[in-house]
Parts: sequence; C-alpha cells; structure tokens
Amino acid sequence: MGRHRVLRNSQIGSYIYPVVPADFQNWIKEQKAWRETAVLYDQSHHMDNLFLKGSDAIKLISATAINSTAVFPVDRAKQYVPTTESGHVIGDGILFREAEDEYVYVGRAPAANWLLYHGETGGYGNLDITVDRRSPSRPYGHAVSRQYYRFQIQGPNAWQVIEKLNGGSLEQLKFFNMSTMTIDGTVVRTLRHGMAGAPGLEVWGPYADHDRIGNAIVEAGAEFGLVPVGSRAYPSNTLESGWIPSPLPAIYTGEAERGYREWLPADGYEATGTLAGSFVSKDIEDYYLTPWELGYGSFVKLDHDFIGRDALEKMDPASQRKKVTLAWNGEDVTSIFASLFDVDGPSYKYFDLPLANYGSANYDSVVDADGTVVGLSMFTGYSANERRALSLATVDANVPEGTELKVVWGEPNGGSTKAAVERHVQKEVRAVVSPAPYSAVVRSAYHGGWRTNYQPA
Amino acid sequence: MGRHRVLRNSQIGSYIYPVVPADFQNWIKEQKAWRETAVLYDQSHHMDNLFLKGSDAIKLISATAINSTAVFPVDRAKQYVPTTESGHVIGDGILFREAEDEYVYVGRAPAANWLLYHGETGGYGNLDITVDRRSPSRPYGHAVSRQYYRFQIQGPNAWQVIEKLNGGSLEQLKFFNMSTMTIDGTVVRTLRHGMAGAPGLEVWGPYADHDRIGNAIVEAGAEFGLVPVGSRAYPSNTLESGWIPSPLPAIYTGEAERGYREWLPADGYEATGTLAGSFVSKDIEDYYLTPWELGYGSFVKLDHDFIGRDALEKMDPASQRKKVTLAWNGEDVTSIFASLFDVDGPSYKYFDLPLANYGSANYDSVVDADGTVVGLSMFTGYSANERRALSLATVDANVPEGTELKVVWGEPNGGSTKAAVERHVQKEVRAVVSPAPYSAVVRSAYHGGWRTNYQPA
Repeated sequence: MGRHRVLRNSQIGSYIYPVVPADFQNWIKEQKAWRETAVLYDQSHHMDNLFLKGSDAIKLISATAINSTAVFPVDRAKQYVPTTESGHVIGDGILFREAEDEYVYVGRAPAANWLLYHGETGGYGNLDITVDRRSPSRPYGHAVSRQYYRFQIQGPNAWQVIEKLNGGSLEQLKFFNMSTMTIDGTVVRTLRHGMAGAPGLEVWGPYADHDRIGNAIVEAGAEFGLVPVGSRAYPSNTLESGWIPSPLPAIYTGEAERGYREWLPADGYEATGTLAGSFVSKDIEDYYLTPWELGYGSFVKLDHDFIGRDALEKMDPASQRKKVTLAWNGEDVTSIFASLFDVDGPSYKYFDLPLANYGSANYDSVVDADGTVVGLSMFTGYSANERRALSLATVDANVPEGTELKVVWGEPNGGSTKAAVERHVQKEVRAVVSPAPYSAVVRSAYHGGWRTNYQPA
Repeated sequence: MGRHRVLRNSQIGSYIYPVVPADFQNWIKEQKAWRETAVLYDQSHHMDNLFLKGSDAIKLISATAINSTAVFPVDRAKQYVPTTESGHVIGDGILFREAEDEYVYVGRAPAANWLLYHGETGGYGNLDITVDRRSPSRPYGHAVSRQYYRFQIQGPNAWQVIEKLNGGSLEQLKFFNMSTMTIDGTVVRTLRHGMAGAPGLEVWGPYADHDRIGNAIVEAGAEFGLVPVGSRAYPSNTLESGWIPSPLPAIYTGEAERGYREWLPADGYEATGTLAGSFVSKDIEDYYLTPWELGYGSFVKLDHDFIGRDALEKMDPASQRKKVTLAWNGEDVTSIFASLFDVDGPSYKYFDLPLANYGSANYDSVVDADGTVVGLSMFTGYSANERRALSLATVDANVPEGTELKVVWGEPNGGSTKAAVERHVQKEVRAVVSPAPYSAVVRSAYHGGWRTNYQPA
C-alpha cells in the first residue's frame, strides 16, 4: 500500500490539542478576547520540546536550517525551518537560545526528529540532545507532566496585565528577544511576542509551577478582561495570524533521506499521522512544499551550508506558489451546515467549529473556474472576530489577491477510512484570495467587488 | 440578588462530561454506531455515586422516593425520583441493590445530596452513607480516580460483543436485573440494559480495572463495529432515548426545605449551577416540575409514606404537562448557523453540536402561534441518526403530537453573563411535537402533514 494511502487511512483519530480543557467560557468569547481584551494561551502540552546542549549545538542547527545563524545571540529566538536535500520543508518550530550553549526547539515532531537524527548521526563531539514529547492526546484521567510550562499573555490589554503581574513597568524589547519578569514572586523567563501589533509575552519555567503561575495570570488579568483560552479555540488563532502549522514532512521519498526513514520509529508522528482533504495524489511528493510556498522565502539564506541549500539555490522564487488566506463564502459554508439538517439531501464533510481540520496534515484542492488545481488549502476553521470561515493556503504565483477561487471540501469517493472521517460527499466552496495574515482592511476594500481580472490559464 | 439571577449568571462554565476524551473517531460516527453497530459508553466520571449501607437504607429510600419499594429484591435496580414537600422533583438517578443491605445511587448531585441530608438528619440508627462525587470538569493534567468504573455496551451488535467477552452465551435477564459476566478473566457485575429494543449491559467494578476492562471491550468489539463513544457524543444519546437529565432541583423555596438549604454546601451543584435559556421568571418556582411533567407519572405510588406524597395525591395527572420530543425545523436551525457567517447580520446563540445546552439546567420557552408559553424545552442537541435537531420538552396536556410550536432559542436582552454565553439575539425556531423517545415511525407518519388541529386557547 502506498504511503499516501497509509496516511490517508490512519486510525489515530483527530489531531488533538491535548490536556488543556476544551473551553473555560466558550470558544466564541475566547476568540473575541484575543482581539478585544487579553488572553492566556496555555502552550504547555501540544508541542515537542527538544533540549540541545554543547558547543556543537549551533553547528547542528546551522547545518540543518535554511535560516542564517550569523546573528543568533543568547536570549534571542528564531523560527527554525529545515529542508530535505531536495529543498522541501520538513517542519518548523521556534528555537530559543537560552544560554551560551543551550538551545530549546519547540514545535511539532518532524523538525524535532530531524534534529535528533542528525545530532545522533552527524559526528558532533560536544552535543547532548534530549526530547520531551508533546502530551498524550487522550490522557483519560491519567496524570500528565512536562519539563516546562509555557504560557502566552496576548491581546490589546496584555501589557497592562504583564506590568501588573511584574509589579512595575517592563521594557518592551524587540520581537523574539528574551528577558525575565516576576510572576507571583517567581522570576520567569520571557519571550517578546505579540499579536496584531499589540505587545505580548511568552513565559516559561518548570512545569511544577504550571498551576500557580497560570492562576496568578488569570487572577491578575481579570480586571483587564483576560480569559484563559481552551483547547477548542486555541489552534484557530493561527487563522488570523497566518502561520501554517501542518505541512506534511517531505521525508517519505528521496535517497538522501533513506537513513532517516529507517531511523524513525514505527509509532511516531511521521508513521501514524493523518493526511486529510480533497487533494489526493498517488505521488506523495505532490504534498511536499518549498519554503516559499509556506511563506518562509525570506528565511532562505545562502550564507551557510545546509541540507537543501543546492536545491533551494536552483529554485526560482518568483514562480513559487505563495501563502495566502482564503476567505470562504458564507452562503456556501452555510450550505455545509444545512446538509446536517436535510433529512433527504447529501451529507457534506462536517465542518467543526472553530477548527475544521480532520488530519494532522490537511490538503484541500483549490481550483479556478476551469477546475484546474491552482493551490492547496491547508488549515481551515472559523474566526468569530472576522465572522468568516478562513483557511491558510498556498496558491499559484499568478493568482492576485481578490480572486474568487473554489476550495473542494471533503474527500473523494465518500471519504477515506480515517477515524475522523464520516461518509460524505464533496462540496465546492467559493473563497476569495486574501492576505496572510488576514486583514480586515483589505477585506473591506474588496467588499462588493471581490473578483479580480485573474483568468484561468 | 434573586436566586434565579445568581444561577442565570454563574461563572462556572458549561456543564461538562468530564475526563472521557472528546472523541475517539468523531461524534457523527460515534452517534451512528449506537444505532447501527455497537458502542462502549464510559459512564465512570459524570455522575455522583452514593453508597448506602445498613438495614435502615431501604427506609430512607422509601421515605424519600415517589417510587414504591414494595418489590425491590437484591440484584435489581430502580430509577429513583425524590420530590419536595410540595411534590416537585429534586432530581433522579438509578438505585442499584447490590446486596441485602447495600444500595448504590448513581446520578446527578441533587438527589444524592437529598439522600445524604435525610440520611444524616432522619434519625436512622443503622445507616452508613458515603459519597464519591463526579470527576472534576477540568482535570487539566491531574490524575482522576473513582471508586467504580462504569461502562455500558449498547447497540444492535452489543449482545454479540458481550457473549464473545464472556466466552459463551449469557442469559438475557429482564430490564434492570443484575447478574455477572466475565471480561478478561475478571467476573464483573452487570445490569441488564438496552437501547431501542436491542439488549445491552452496564458493567462495573473497581476503578483500578478501568483501563483493562475498557480496552478488552473495545478489542473484542472491533469485529462487530463497536466504537468507544467520546464525551462529545455521549450526552446526546438521551435525545433519542428520551430521558431529561437536568431539571432544576426544586429546593430553593419552601419552608419544609429550609433546613436542607442551610445544610447544602456553598460550592455545590445547587449553589453554583447554571440556569440557561430563554424562559426567564423572577419566581424560581416557575422552573419546578412535577413527576408527570418529566414523564415519571407512572412511578408515583401512594402505597407508602414519602416526602411530597400529600401534595402529589392532590394533583390532577390529566392536567399536567407531558414529556415530548420536539423535532426542530431544519431551515430554522440552519439560519442559526448562517448567522455565524453573515458579517453584517444578527448573531444567534451558538448551537453547539451535538449537544447545544449551555447550562446545567436548561429552560427554553416553547410558544404557540399566539406567543403563549405552552411548554419548556430542556435538553437540546442534534442526532445524526435522525438528521434533526431535537429537544426534550414538557408541554401542555392539550397539545397533540404533530403540532408545530416554536422554541425561543437564546436568552433575552443580549444574553446573561454566564461564562458560556456570548452576546446574541433570540431566534424563534419551529418545532414539531413528537413522542419521547423520538420515533422515526411517527416522524414518517407526519411527513408532509405535520400540523394538527391544535388551536391556541
């Protein structure tokens, strides 16, 4: 059985944001809070943490990253993107430089596994790597622990909450710079973050402090409208901020990656993951994406040697697909819901709210008026702030913003046998190509005149 | 602040079916499995368990139950319904007679608390009561335990799964009779149960066996299409089976219940619960229900003395409201979802799928064509088997099946400040009075001619 078929019919179930309660208020109020007041995101559980120590750590990072490490001081973070020999993305995550020779990678498993493998096999003399895997998807009453808790305080009122907690003013460093602050008498590490222009912080420390630090933030934030965000709303925030969390790691083919595939565990992310959506190809390489297609083109720095460098050097950035937001047509999405209540009509694939993905890697075909596939829609859901279904996608370079395309929602032939897929028929949904991050300003400008003069080739 | 206002604005959040994962496949497939193949329900976590021991236990039960205990042998179970002095329902649950002088009550807190209070204050010499409260709603990574695990094996293929597990045929006792069977080498207690005519069993034992017994059932059941049901689908099964889990306990007024109210804890179900929905009255007694209104009229047995007997004896059963299922109009429910995607239109109260309740006690007004309140809609959601939104309701005695009424969905004045309520406007939804349990046969008979000759008074 082909690899694409194995992944398309995985029985592992939906990709879950684990441990954090589904909601504290409800997902609509929690989405609105990140736009209007302030929120606490609990990011303690859904990512792998990989701890790299030793003077060779930076060599491993540099040898596997499209990014330059020429400027990477202590107390700085970087978005880390590794590629295969063919220049296709394996995954991505955040690398924190916590001390001279100490780095922490935080992200999904594919890039963590890639670092682990090359760390073990790359002949690095002074390198120690340990990994703390994401929490179980279904703890089912069993205790869960991590090495770190990891929170974000975000939203327009976030800095007021932060300074109240800190008991005084706190310098707003530049984005992705690290420092410290005080919460409940404890000095915690901070990463300058932010959403939609409002400054925020990520904070972390030993997991034993999870409940105490989290409760202190919620308590201090109440007067500023801060609410904790549950696991149901949380992953939908990226629909507004524009990061695609879920490309299929491009590691299933390629002679250069054979050793890696043999090293990967049979029960890991790559072997058991779920490939979902209307885009189906027998050639798994059709799911691979270049850095440009995921919006990481500006990260590609040919100032160093790294895996994939030669391939990337030969690619033409201008002809690559580009990352966009698709704003789904409200009437068409409504018809998906209408099918739930139409006793005699077709059943469309259930569109869960606010996150509609049903795989760990999601690929829906984006087609133009001729039915030609001009892109892939990869992360789908709903924003109560925009009152629209949105998806993050990569589309052909020649498709301008404002173009109306169609997303094919649901899988062919009644659907795969994945655990999270009920029998259904496909439904085409109109969607307008919009910027990523999605911009209400641009949206307004298109209001009443969404179509552009894009013509199918 | 009036009691109704306290409960309507509780910040405790949605009423959660705790600990059990949200889904194992997805809620649509899990709903279909209980109708088409077989399911494992995990009922270990969402109910209080009250253990009553001693020769006076049956006296306490008899003194507080509308039900007769004249026939209540060992290894038999009963649905237990206590009322206040005024004859209004406090709650209900299942009483298992596990041994000569040992009973276990399983259900929501109100009836458990009532038993606990009267056990403590009723002068019973030979009675020992302990309570094992439902699991925390948001365990958030902390370990959870109970005294018992409690599973049900249900669905058309359930008995095949049961006999495979048992390693041989098993006698199908009458409904609510108890016995034993063998699972994975362990003798477990059983209660004969069933859904829609198909025989099933409830099984229980020490919580330490939870995972092993549960896994054994899932493994044995796979070949018969058995799937475990997650906490998202689970509570919606009652929409098909017709039990109303959630009346407001009728204990907030009444001189006879003053001592009880003073005894109740400040952080318990009665004090922190959430009263939700469009039916709003300053008189909390307007939320109280008699046994007939909840479909428990046949349980009322005047063969014994019990709290509420005198009041119930004076009531006229024929004039009481009656329990029904309301089949919601598909177009109207669709318009609730359409409002999510209508950037400039009104926002209706979010209708979560498959369970749409947003309080621990839910009261939506049911009105006739004149706008007169003729009933209360109390438990609302969706059945993928019926492809309809359904609610369980109590309506005036003179409203015949087939009548089209309207449910007022959402709260007045933009909504209460309950944690689970976002700002919204109300929406009237047409709904057809149908039997409880909901019957596809009757539904078909009404097809194309739902209206009856009911006329508003």
